[in-house]
Amino acid sequence: MATTEGTKLWGGRFVGNTDPVMESFNASIAYDQRMWDADIRGSKAYVKALEKAQLVSMEENQKILHGLDQIADEWAKGTFEIKPGDEDIHTANERRLKELIGAPGGKLHTGRSRNDQVVTDMRLWLRDAIATLTSDALQLISTMVERAAVEINVLFPGYTHLQRAQPIRWSHWILSHAVALSRDVDRLLEIKKRVNVLPLGSGAIAGTYLAYDLLFFFKYEIGRIFSLCFFCVFFLAEFLFWASLCLTHLSKMAEDLMLYSTKEFSFVTLSDAYSTGSSLMPQKRNADSLELIRSKAGRLFGRCAGFMMTLKGLPSTYNKDLQEDKEAMFDCYDTVHAVLQVTTGVLSTLKINQSVMEAALSPDMLATDLAYYLVRKGVPFRDAHSLSGKAVFTAESKNVSLNQLTKEDLIAISPLFEDDVSSLWDYQSSVEQYSAPGGTAKSSVETQVEHLRKWTKILMQ
Amino acid sequence: MATTEGTKLWGGRFVGNTDPVMESFNASIAYDQRMWDADIRGSKAYVKALEKAQLVSMEENQKILHGLDQIADEWAKGTFEIKPGDEDIHTANERRLKELIGAPGGKLHTGRSRNDQVVTDMRLWLRDAIATLTSDALQLISTMVERAAVEINVLFPGYTHLQRAQPIRWSHWILSHAVALSRDVDRLLEIKKRVNVLPLGSGAIAGTYLAYDLLFFFKYEIGRIFSLCFFCVFFLAEFLFWASLCLTHLSKMAEDLMLYSTKEFSFVTLSDAYSTGSSLMPQKRNADSLELIRSKAGRLFGRCAGFMMTLKGLPSTYNKDLQEDKEAMFDCYDTVHAVLQVTTGVLSTLKINQSVMEAALSPDMLATDLAYYLVRKGVPFRDAHSLSGKAVFTAESKNVSLNQLTKEDLIAISPLFEDDVSSLWDYQSSVEQYSAPGGTAKSSVETQVEHLRKWTKILMQ
Amino acid sequence: MATTEGTKLWGGRFVGNTDPVMESFNASIAYDQRMWDADIRGSKAYVKALEKAQLVSMEENQKILHGLDQIADEWAKGTFEIKPGDEDIHTANERRLKELIGAPGGKLHTGRSRNDQVVTDMRLWLRDAIATLTSDALQLISTMVERAAVEINVLFPGYTHLQRAQPIRWSHWILSHAVALSRDVDRLLEIKKRVNVLPLGSGAIAGTYLAYDLLFFFKYEIGRIFSLCFFCVFFLAEFLFWASLCLTHLSKMAEDLMLYSTKEFSFVTLSDAYSTGSSLMPQKRNADSLELIRSKAGRLFGRCAGFMMTLKGLPSTYNKDLQEDKEAMFDCYDTVHAVLQVTTGVLSTLKINQSVMEAALSPDMLATDLAYYLVRKGVPFRDAHSLSGKAVFTAESKNVSLNQLTKEDLIAISPLFEDDVSSLWDYQSSVEQYSAPGGTAKSSVETQVEHLRKWTKILMQ
Amino acid sequence: MATTEGTKLWGGRFVGNTDPVMESFNASIAYDQRMWDADIRGSKAYVKALEKAQLVSMEENQKILHGLDQIADEWAKGTFEIKPGDEDIHTANERRLKELIGAPGGKLHTGRSRNDQVVTDMRLWLRDAIATLTSDALQLISTMVERAAVEINVLFPGYTHLQRAQPIRWSHWILSHAVALSRDVDRLLEIKKRVNVLPLGSGAIAGTYLAYDLLFFFKYEIGRIFSLCFFCVFFLAEFLFWASLCLTHLSKMAEDLMLYSTKEFSFVTLSDAYSTGSSLMPQKRNADSLELIRSKAGRLFGRCAGFMMTLKGLPSTYNKDLQEDKEAMFDCYDTVHAVLQVTTGVLSTLKINQSVMEAALSPDMLATDLAYYLVRKGVPFRDAHSLSGKAVFTAESKNVSLNQLTKEDLIAISPLFEDDVSSLWDYQSSVEQYSAPGGTAKSSVETQVEHLRKWTKILMQ
Repeated sequence: MATTEGTKLWGGRFVGNTDPVMESFNASIAYDQRMWDADIRGSKAYVKALEKAQLVSMEENQKILHGLDQIADEWAKGTFEIKPGDEDIHTANERRLKELIGAPGGKLHTGRSRNDQVVTDMRLWLRDAIATLTSDALQLISTMVERAAVEINVLFPGYTHLQRAQPIRWSHWILSHAVALSRDVDRLLEIKKRVNVLPLGSGAIAGTYLAYDLLFFFKYEIGRIFSLCFFCVFFLAEFLFWASLCLTHLSKMAEDLMLYSTKEFSFVTLSDAYSTGSSLMPQKRNADSLELIRSKAGRLFGRCAGFMMTLKGLPSTYNKDLQEDKEAMFDCYDTVHAVLQVTTGVLSTLKINQSVMEAALSPDMLATDLAYYLVRKGVPFRDAHSLSGKAVFTAESKNVSLNQLTKEDLIAISPLFEDDVSSLWDYQSSVEQYSAPGGTAKSSVETQVEHLRKWTKILMQ
Repeated sequence: MATTEGTKLWGGRFVGNTDPVMESFNASIAYDQRMWDADIRGSKAYVKALEKAQLVSMEENQKILHGLDQIADEWAKGTFEIKPGDEDIHTANERRLKELIGAPGGKLHTGRSRNDQVVTDMRLWLRDAIATLTSDALQLISTMVERAAVEINVLFPGYTHLQRAQPIRWSHWILSHAVALSRDVDRLLEIKKRVNVLPLGSGAIAGTYLAYDLLFFFKYEIGRIFSLCFFCVFFLAEFLFWASLCLTHLSKMAEDLMLYSTKEFSFVTLSDAYSTGSSLMPQKRNADSLELIRSKAGRLFGRCAGFMMTLKGLPSTYNKDLQEDKEAMFDCYDTVHAVLQVTTGVLSTLKINQSVMEAALSPDMLATDLAYYLVRKGVPFRDAHSLSGKAVFTAESKNVSLNQLTKEDLIAISPLFEDDVSSLWDYQSSVEQYSAPGGTAKSSVETQVEHLRKWTKILMQ
Repeated sequence: MATTEGTKLWGGRFVGNTDPVMESFNASIAYDQRMWDADIRGSKAYVKALEKAQLVSMEENQKILHGLDQIADEWAKGTFEIKPGDEDIHTANERRLKELIGAPGGKLHTGRSRNDQVVTDMRLWLRDAIATLTSDALQLISTMVERAAVEINVLFPGYTHLQRAQPIRWSHWILSHAVALSRDVDRLLEIKKRVNVLPLGSGAIAGTYLAYDLLFFFKYEIGRIFSLCFFCVFFLAEFLFWASLCLTHLSKMAEDLMLYSTKEFSFVTLSDAYSTGSSLMPQKRNADSLELIRSKAGRLFGRCAGFMMTLKGLPSTYNKDLQEDKEAMFDCYDTVHAVLQVTTGVLSTLKINQSVMEAALSPDMLATDLAYYLVRKGVPFRDAHSLSGKAVFTAESKNVSLNQLTKEDLIAISPLFEDDVSSLWDYQSSVEQYSAPGGTAKSSVETQVEHLRKWTKILMQ
Repeated sequence: MATTEGTKLWGGRFVGNTDPVMESFNASIAYDQRMWDADIRGSKAYVKALEKAQLVSMEENQKILHGLDQIADEWAKGTFEIKPGDEDIHTANERRLKELIGAPGGKLHTGRSRNDQVVTDMRLWLRDAIATLTSDALQLISTMVERAAVEINVLFPGYTHLQRAQPIRWSHWILSHAVALSRDVDRLLEIKKRVNVLPLGSGAIAGTYLAYDLLFFFKYEIGRIFSLCFFCVFFLAEFLFWASLCLTHLSKMAEDLMLYSTKEFSFVTLSDAYSTGSSLMPQKRNADSLELIRSKAGRLFGRCAGFMMTLKGLPSTYNKDLQEDKEAMFDCYDTVHAVLQVTTGVLSTLKINQSVMEAALSPDMLATDLAYYLVRKGVPFRDAHSLSGKAVFTAESKNVSLNQLTKEDLIAISPLFEDDVSSLWDYQSSVEQYSAPGGTAKSSVETQVEHLRKWTKILMQ
C-alpha cells in the first residue's frame, strides 16, 4: 500500500509512514459517511457565521455554499467517490470541497475543531433520528389502543408468576404495554432536549474567539455550550440506554405473546408474514418475529454497556476512544426503528382465539373474590384469605372445581357462606368490580383508551 | 430447622415443609427492613382509605394507626424483633401488628396485594433518597462553583488526548465538570416525576374494587396507576442507570485529578484526609479517595447491567426475579451518597500548585494562535494550520521553543510573518480571545459562574 | 468522631485528620473479615519463610505462630473484637497480634506488601470456594443423571422456538442440561489451576529480596509469580464470568421448568417446599424457586460487568479501585452455592405428570418422519420436506390430525405414499430412530447416563 | 417489493406475504456470507457421510462435491450472486447448488437441521479464527520478550496508585504484560478444545438416525455431541468473554503507555505511524493508536454483555434470538486481530527516552530500602517503616531529598543509622536485591525472558 501522507489534512508535520492496519483501525468513513447530510448542513450554517465574522467574504461564502450543495448532490445520487486518505466524512467532504472550489475551501474549518464538528453532526443526525423513532412509537401505541378499543369485551386469564391469577380484559393487557411505551416516549422527548444543543464554537477545549451569533439553527442556551468539549457524548449514553430500556419493555411483551402463541396456550395466532417455517420439520410455524424482538434488548444493552465501559475513567475532553460512539448510535437507531415497525406489524395482524382465551378461565381464579365475599361479611382479609385457601384445597382434594363445592363443604369451612355465594362464579361480574382507575373494569379500560388517544394525538401533531 | 409453616401468611394451603436454603434464598428481610418507615407510612395512608371505603371502622382505624406508630417506635429505637417466618419487612410489620392489636390487624391488607405494597414502599423510599442525592449534588456543584470563582485567574494546560493542547483557566476545567453534574441533577429530577406516582390500588394485576380516593399523599394522575402492576420497576432501572452515568462523570473528573496529583504533573495536592499511605513504602501518598470514586462507576453500572439482564424477557406482571430490585436500589443510593460527599470533601480541601501549573504552559501550545495570525492575514485556515505545523517542526529540529524561532526561520515558512508575531506569546492574551459563551476568557467563565450560582440557588430552595 | 490517626499502621507521616465518610468508604473490614482463616493460614506460612531467611528467630516464629492460633480461635468463637482503625482483615489481625505478643508481631510484615498479602488470602479463600462449588455441581449432575436413568421411558414433546418439534425422551431433556453443567465443571477446574498460584513474594511491584523457598503450600511455577503484582485479579474476572455463565445455563433450565409447570403445560409439579403462595390470591402456587434461580444469572453477570468496567483502563499494579474485587467474589460464590443447592432440591422433589406429557404428543410432530418416508423412496429431502408440508396443510384445512389423512389425500400429494405409511404414527418407534450418539433413542440416552456416571465418579473422588 | 415466497426452502406451507421490514430483520446473509468457506467445507464432509449411509449414490456425491467446488470458486472470485430469498449463507449455497446440479442438490440437507449446520459452520470458522489470534498473540509476546531482552539495563520508576513506588527495570514492566498475554493464550487454547467438537448430526433436537461415522474432520468425543442442540452457543459466550478480557489487559498496557507518552512523563515516544495530529492544533501529536486499543475493551465487553443478556432465560434449544451470535463473533475476532497487530506495531517502533526515565528516579523511592536497613539491624519491619516515614517527612520539611539528610537528622530519628546508610542510594543495587523469582533483579528478568522464549517457541510450532 502506497503512503497516503500527502492527502492528510495535518500533513505538515509527520515524516514517517503509516501502518495500513492502523490506517483502517483509525478510519471511520465506512460508517460515518451516513452523516453526510448532517455534515453538510452543519458546514453551511457554519460558513454563514464565518461570513458574519468577516472571516470569509460574501463571494467565498457563495462559493463554499455552492460547493457544499454539489457535494450533497453527489452523495444523494450515490456518485460521491471516497478516496484513500478520506478517513472520515468530515475529511472527505472537506477534501472534495477543495477539489471543487479550490482555496476558499480551506477557510471553512477556521476556528472549528473536528471535535466540535463531529459532535454537531451527531446531534443534527440524532435529532432527526429521534423524531422518526417518536413517530414509530406513536404509530405502535396507536395500533395497540385501537385494537384494545375493538376487543374490549374479550376476557382471558391474567398471569402473575406465570400462573393463572385473575380474569382480566385482553385490552387491559394490551394497554399495560401501551402505557409502558408511552413512558418511553416521554423519556425520549426529555433526551431530545439535551441533544438539541449547539456545540459548534466550543472548539477542542478552550472555546472559540469568533463572536458570531450562534442562533441560526439551534436555540441558544447559556450554560449548555460551555461543557460540551469536555463531555460531548453523554447525551449519547442516555440515548443508548433509552433504546435498551424501550426494547426491554418490548422483550417482555414479546415473551408474553410467545407464550400465548404456543400450542399449549393457543390464545393468539401470528400471521404468516411474521412467522417462519423450519428447514427440517414441515409442521413447524415459529414466531421468529417475536424472538427477534426479544433478542434485540440484549443487543442494544450490549451497545450501552460497551459505550459506558469505554467512557469510564477517560480523561476529560476528546480521546480517540470516543470514536466508538457512532456505530453504537447507528445500530441503536436502526434496531429500534426496525423493532417498532415489526411490532406494529405483528400486533396489527395477530389473530386472537377468543373461545380458547375464555375457556382458560376457571373458578379457582375467583378465589380472591371468595375471600372478599367473607370480607364483606366482616371477616378480616387475612382470615378470609386463609378460609378461601381452605376452600381451594378442599376442591382440589375432592377433584372438583371451586364452584362445585357443596354448601356443606363451604359451611364446614365457614358458617358465613350462604346461598348467594353462587353469584360469584361469573367472570364478567368479577372484572367489573375493578373499576378504580387502572382497573380491568370496562369503564376503567375505556377511560384509559380515551386518555391514550388524546395523548397520542397531541404528540402526533 | 423446625418448620415455620404456622407463621406464614398464606398458611391455609401448603402441606409440605420448606428447604432451609430455599427459605433464606427467598427471604428479603435482611435488606428490605431498611424500608420500615416507608412501609408504615404507606400502611397508615392505606388504612385511612379503607376507613373511607367503610372496610374498617373508625375504631379499627384508630387501633391500626396506633399499632403502626408503636411498630415505628420499635424500629426507631432498635427494639423491633425479627422472628422466623418474617420473610420480608411487610410480613414482619403485619405480623407484629396482629400481635399488638389482634384481629383488626388482619384487615389492613384488604384489597392490597403485596406487589403493590412493595412498590409503594420503594417509591416512597426512593423519593426521599432522590431528595438527599439532589441536595448532595447541589452541595458539590456549589463547592465547585465557589472554588472556580476564587481561582479564576489561574491558568494551566488544557489537554486533549492527554497531550497539552491550549492554555485554559483552571476554573474552566472545574466548571466543565460542574455543568456535567448539573445535567445529572436535571435528569434525576425527571426521574423523580416518574417515581412519584401512586401504585397502591393496582392490586396484583386486575386493579382494585375499592373506589376510595387516592389523593392523600400522591398527586393523582390518570394513566399512571394503570400500568404499574405490569411494569412496576422500570423507574428503578432508570435510577440505576442514572447513578452509573453520574458516577461515570465523576470517574472522569477523578481520573483528571489523579493525573494532576502525580509527581509528574504535580498540579494539585490532596489533603491528608483524602490520601493514604502504603503498608510497604513509607514515602507513598496515594490518592485512594480518587481511586475509590473512579471505581464506583463500574460497580454501579454492574448493578444496572444485572437488573436489566434480570428484566429482559420476563413475562408481564410480578415474577420473583424482581426481588433483585431492592439491593440494587440501596447500593446505588448508598454509593452515590458517599461518592458525592467524598468528592465535595476532596474538592474543598485540595491545594493547587499554581506555579507548577503555569510553568507547564509552553509556547507550542499557542501554535493554533500562530495559525490564526496567518488567517488574519488572509491565509485559509487549512494552509495556516500546515504552515504553523512547519514552524513547530522547525523549532523541534532546532531544539528551541516555538517562540524562539528567528524572524528568518519564520519568513522561510511564510513571508507573511512580521515582527508583531512576538505579541502572540502571551498566555493571558491567548485565553482572553475565547470570549464566546463557553470559552475560557474571564468574562465567559464569570458568566458561567453566575449562571450556575443562580441555578443552584433556585433548586436549593 | 475522634481522630483515629494513632491506630493507623502507616501513622508515621500524616498530620491531617480523616473525613469519617472517607474512612468508611475506604474500609473493607465489614466484608473482608470473611477471609480471616485464609489470612491466618497465609501468615503462618509466611512467618515460616521469614524464619528460614533468618529474618525472625525461631523463638519469634513460635510466638507469632502461637499468637496467630489464638486469633484464629477468637474468630472461630466469635469473640474477635474489631476496633476503630481496623480498616481491613489484615490490619485487624496484625493489630491483634501485636496486642497479644508485642514487638515480634511487627516483624510479620517484613518484605510483604499488603497487596500480595490480600491476593494470597483471596486465592486461598477462592481455592476452597471452588472445591465447594465443584462438589455442589457434581451433586446436582448426579441427581439429574439418576433421575434420567429412572424416567428413561417417558416421552414428551421436544420444543424448538417454543413450538412442538419432535417427540423426545424426558431423560434427553434432563441430560442435555446435565451435560451443559459438566462443561461448567470443566471450566471451573481450568480456572482453579490459575487461582492456585502463589503471589506471596511479589511485593508491591518490584518483587522481594528474600531468597526463601516458596514451596510450602503452593506448587512453585516459574513464570507465574512474576506477573502477579501487575495483574493480580484477572483470575477473579474469570471466576465472576464463570459464575454468570453457569447461572445462565441454569436460567434456561429454570425457564423450561417454569413453562412446564404452568397450568397450560402441566408437565411437572413443584413440591411445596419450592413453591410459595400469594398474599392476595388463595389459589396461587408460584414457582418462586425457579424464578429466583432465573434471576441470579442477571445479578452475577452484573457483578462481572461491574468488575470488568472497573478494571478497564486502570494503570498497572495495585490501584484502590481493585477493592471492588472481594464483594463480587463473595456474592458470586454465595449465590452459585445457594442456586446449585436449591436446584438440586427442586429436581429431586419435582413430580412429573407422565400422562399429560404423553398426551401432548401429536401426529404433526412426526411430519419430519413423513418426509423421511419419502426420502427412503428416493425423493430428495428438500422435495420430501415440501411434500410433507403439503400433507400438514391438507390436514389443517380438513381439520383432522396428520395421521387421519386418507390414502387418497396422501396419494394426491405424492403417489409414493403406500399403506405402510401407517406404521409411522408411533412415537416410540420415532424416537428409537435417533440412535446415533447424542440422539434420543434409548440406547443413546443410556450411553450418556453411563458416561456421566463415570465422569462424575472420577471427579468426586 | 414482490413476494419472494417461491424461493423459500420451506415453501410448502405458507400462504401469506411477508413484511419487507421483517424480511430484512430476519435475514443474516449480509454478514454470515463470511462463513461461505466453512459452509462448503461442512457440506462436503456431510455429503461423504450421506454416501456412506447410502442416502446419496456415489454419482450424486460426485455431482454435489463438484457443485460445491464451483460455488466455492464463485465466492473466492467474488462472482457469487446473492438473490432475493437468500436469507442466509446456507440457503444461498443450497439454492445455488440446485441451480448448478439440479435434483441431487436437494439431497444434501437429508437428516440435517439448519441449526446443526449453522453451528458446524461457526465452529469451523472459529477454529480457524482462534488459530490466527493465537499466532497474533504469540507474535506480540515475542516482540515484547525480545525488546525486554535488549533493554534489560534500563531502570525507571515503578508506580502503584500512579505514584512513584520503587525503581524497576523497564523490562520488568514489559514482561509483566507479556506474561498476562501468555495467560490469555492459555485460556484461548482451552476454549479451542470446546469449539473443536462436532455438532453435525444432533439435528434440531432429537438427534439423527443416520448411523454414519462422524470421525472425518473432528475428533469424535462421546458426550460432546449430545448437548449441542440444546446449548449450541455457550462456546461462543466463552470466546466473547475471552476477547474482552484479553483487551482489558491491553487497555491497561495502553493506559500505562499513554501516561508514559505525555509531555509530563516523556518516558516513551510513539512512532509517527501510530500517532496522529490535530485538525486544529498544529503542535499536537496524539497517541491515537493507544486510545483505540484502550477503547476496544469496552466495545467487546459490550458484545459479551449483549450476548449474555440475549441468552438469559431463553428456553432450551434453538430460538431465533441466537441469531445475534454471528455478528458478535465476527466483531470480536476482527477487533482482537487488529488490536494485536497494532499493539505489535506500536511496541516494535516505540522509542524510549532512557535519560528521562532514569532522571525520574528519586531517593524517596528507596524509602523501603531505608526501612530494610533498620530491619537488618533488628528493628521490626513495622517500626522500621514508621522510622523511614519520619525520615521522608523530615526531608520534605527541610525541602531536601531523602539522601541529603544529615547524619544528625537520621540519628535523631534512630540511633541505629550509621555511615553505611549512604550505600543505599544506588538504584542499581536496589533493584538487584529483588532476585527471587518474579523480582526485578537482572537474573530474575533474564530467567523470565528465557522461560517465555521457550514457551512461545513450543506454541509457535
